[in-house]
Amino acid sequence: MIPVAGLPEIRAGDDLAELVAAKIELEDGDVIVLAQKVVSKSEGRVVRLEEIEPTERALEIAGNDQDPRRIEAILREAKRVVRVRKPLVIAETKQGFICASAGVDTSNAPEPGMLVLLPEDADVSAGRIRERLRELTGRAVAVLVTDSFGRPWRQGTIDVAIGASGLEVIRDLRGKRDRVGYELHATMIAVADEIASAAELVMGKLDGIPAAIVRGLEVAGDGYARDLVIPEERDLFR
Amino acid sequence: MIPVAGLPEIRAGDDLAELVAAKIELEDGDVIVLAQKVVSKSEGRVVRLEEIEPTERALEIAGNDQDPRRIEAILREAKRVVRVRKPLVIAETKQGFICASAGVDTSNAPEPGMLVLLPEDADVSAGRIRERLRELTGRAVAVLVTDSFGRPWRQGTIDVAIGASGLEVIRDLRGKRDRVGYELHATMIAVADEIASAAELVMGKLDGIPAAIVRGLEVAGDGYARDLVIPEERDLFR
Repeated sequence: MIPVAGLPEIRAGDDLAELVAAKIELEDGDVIVLAQKVVSKSEGRVVRLEEIEPTERALEIAGNDQDPRRIEAILREAKRVVRVRKPLVIAETKQGFICASAGVDTSNAPEPGMLVLLPEDADVSAGRIRERLRELTGRAVAVLVTDSFGRPWRQGTIDVAIGASGLEVIRDLRGKRDRVGYELHATMIAVADEIASAAELVMGKLDGIPAAIVRGLEVAGDGYARDLVIPEERDLFR
Repeated sequence: MIPVAGLPEIRAGDDLAELVAAKIELEDGDVIVLAQKVVSKSEGRVVRLEEIEPTERALEIAGNDQDPRRIEAILREAKRVVRVRKPLVIAETKQGFICASAGVDTSNAPEPGMLVLLPEDADVSAGRIRERLRELTGRAVAVLVTDSFGRPWRQGTIDVAIGASGLEVIRDLRGKRDRVGYELHATMIAVADEIASAAELVMGKLDGIPAAIVRGLEVAGDGYARDLVIPEERDLFR
């Protein structure tokens, strides 16, 4: 796991692939992990609070403590509101992920008064960046876009995959047997989420390191992060 | 991340610390990650199906497809049954973790007809192994006991921490500011879970590699995996 330090503050239109490739010599099989924040910024997925007119519902959820314009941005980003615990909104993003605030975030925004939104479709973002990396370096790499998500039952956030390209997102061991001949307990492993979490350990939110390379794993594949969304009827934990 | 290969099949009473220390030269600051399965086996936390008498409730949940003795073992291990979706039981373990089958598992058991249970308290297990490692090597290390858990909303399992000693289990960034001055979005990071997931990437269920060393992170601390259990009233995702 290699942190990619020294990237500049990312602006709309910046070529993330070029910026990363300039910092580190890529190898075939590398997984380039990018924090959602830089991908969103490079895609111009930011909004100014002053340009947002809150609806009644946003005002109601915001109450007296929160900026209703921020709540409004969340409601606009949400495909579906899963739960409201004022002023917190748990929502399904356009891609189908369940997370706090539909991924809308004020921290690490380009300027005060701005919100960063998730990429429209981070799988597409990952594919585009991977293609560009191949063009620039000739290397066959995978790209992973990650974000920090809370989860039920457990304290704290972990980083998970919200966009992937060139990666074995889920390792399917169904039907595989252990040494005694029993079918394995954990038969579908969310490899992309595990790589996302691994990379977070070297990325650091305070140090402003929004990218890392994970090298030496054999995880090339053709999965998408959207494969990690489990259909409701098959979700035994919901 | 260094996989620890070549460990023998673990039996009750085996000294896991000694077995690991014999395979790899430990360094101060290392995190020794151990799959729950080997910790449980070393502690004799296995039961034979033939010794279990299923109750009515176990018979009812098992239906015609499942072994009711396995369901009975799960019910005995569960502090609380969270959800039954026959024949699957989601339960709270004695330590307070929510997972499938209260962690009871048939795969990678010592012999057919045996079930492996979770350690009684994997934080205690981690503490004991860490103490023994210090005794054997003089090194100040951390120990993490991990298991593969499913989760709501997302496909596949990821490895998480169920026992920890000597580790900064949760990194608390509350009140910390980003470069623009905004409070950070993800303010409590479940570092122990991220390390568990990272280690799974090199551990491999099929290859029988139940241990790994994570080196080079600055994560020494005094947290426990039980700190990862979020009190219900503060769980915004539940």
